[in-house]
Amino acid sequence: PHIPYAPPRYPEPEMLERSQQFYSLMNQRRSVRFISPEPVPRAVIENVIRTAGTAPSGAHTEPWTFVVVADADTKHRIREIVEEEEEINYKQRMGDKWVNDLQRLRTNWVKEYLDVAPYLILIFKQTYGVLPNGKKKTHYYNEISVSISCGILLSALQNVGLVTVTSTPLNCGPQLRALLRRPANEKLLLLLPVGYPSNDATVPDLNRKDLNDIMVFV
Amino acid sequence: PHIPYAPPRYPEPEMLERSQQFYSLMNQRRSVRFISPEPVPRAVIENVIRTAGTAPSGAHTEPWTFVVVADADTKHRIREIVEEEEEINYKQRMGDKWVNDLQRLRTNWVKEYLDVAPYLILIFKQTYGVLPNGKKKTHYYNEISVSISCGILLSALQNVGLVTVTSTPLNCGPQLRALLRRPANEKLLLLLPVGYPSNDATVPDLNRKDLNDIMVFV
Ligand SMILES: Cc1cc2nc3c(=O)[nH]c(=O)nc-3n(C[C@H](O)[C@H](O)[C@H](O)COP(=O)(O)O)c2cc1C
Ligand SMILES: Cc1cc2nc3c(=O)[nH]c(=O)nc-3n(C[C@H](O)[C@H](O)[C@H](O)COP(=O)(O)O)c2cc1C
Repeated sequence: PHIPYAPPRYPEPEMLERSQQFYSLMNQRRSVRFISPEPVPRAVIENVIRTAGTAPSGAHTEPWTFVVVADADTKHRIREIVEEEEEINYKQRMGDKWVNDLQRLRTNWVKEYLDVAPYLILIFKQTYGVLPNGKKKTHYYNEISVSISCGILLSALQNVGLVTVTSTPLNCGPQLRALLRRPANEKLLLLLPVGYPSNDATVPDLNRKDLNDIMVFV
Repeated sequence: PHIPYAPPRYPEPEMLERSQQFYSLMNQRRSVRFISPEPVPRAVIENVIRTAGTAPSGAHTEPWTFVVVADADTKHRIREIVEEEEEINYKQRMGDKWVNDLQRLRTNWVKEYLDVAPYLILIFKQTYGVLPNGKKKTHYYNEISVSISCGILLSALQNVGLVTVTSTPLNCGPQLRALLRRPANEKLLLLLPVGYPSNDATVPDLNRKDLNDIMVFV
């Protein structure tokens, strides 16, 4: 069945102001690789995940699982897995081009934030679903849907003053999936350490493209 | 060079309240397929696109182009292309399974909103970049980055009271790219009609998964 839909409507000046305020908020977002060990209320993280779960998804499959790791031993094991693979990525797999592209960001394979951040959020995509009768259910566009959900999650984090770095731990998926005992239909998409920035946090001095470089008006 | 980063910080009670408010806002989001022809200020749309442009991206490649179509003839031509392909999708390509999966949503190949919505936003991913010397530049994880940016765009729309339906026009990419004269490195990812909901807008009566079905706490 279908139901009526009438969301709140704002007068034009208020709309314009809201659009500017939200842009200012989100334009302050940066990927932060220096995270404070200070605790963050679990209820805030739960609301952030609830918010991510409001994302649209192909044929309403909601193909996401958010594994929130607060346990110190599990965080440390994740760090070991990620650093081991990343060191191989940097030294052998990726070649000079990738390493040069990343040099500007001064990233390397040491990821202290994986021990230090109060939470690690590992975002899994469900590449298919399993029906009550055991048959597989297609998850159309699961990677796009889960990435959209991550965009909403980043907005929710920014809105409460928490930081993260959106990261894609190359070649770590299978080991992390085994560590966290996720089922065979789930594949790791993104790993986000979450917390307050550390007191001496710095970020690369990057610029963003102008509106005219990203928008074409027809 | 790196620069200090110190975003605003909220006391815990305020954090919790902000996380609840943003969840309520986003939980009202629905994919709306009945859009009003009423005009929407262009400045609001520009701020929404600016906001989408704050997304993170693999190695800061910012691999997105947002084509905003307000011109009636171009919208109509887009509708013709999409409806022609969608009719073939429904009748021939996709098989009964896909059509059944979508039946609940009562979608079909008639997309009146493509004529009616004041704006169509076509989101292209840049599958590679072109350097000043003409060489190709790898765009790591471009589809994930652009989908994350779309999630932030959906948050920005919701924040100003506008609606859309996130759509993936199957097999229309090449024709729409040609119509809009986008370069060879750009591929259509998503098409979003944007406006106010029409007065009699309805949406499928869907539920979302509970927190316990999407979050695992370790
Ligand atoms: C990647 C993706 C592709 C989608 N493709 C279409 C589409 O082609 N046509 C359509 O009507 N809806 C499409 N949708 C919208 C979904 O059907 C919708 O998000 C889902 O039914 C949940 O409803 P909600 O967005 O109102 O929460 C798509 C959504 C996503 C995320
Ligand atoms: C899909 C994707 C993958 C990324 N992978 C990594 C990563 O593995 N490690 C890392 O330090 N940063 C990673 N980033 C963060 C980008 O480097 C960052 O977004 C970009 O440099 C722009 O900086 P900003 O987020 O501060 O605006 C990734 C971002 C995206 C969207």
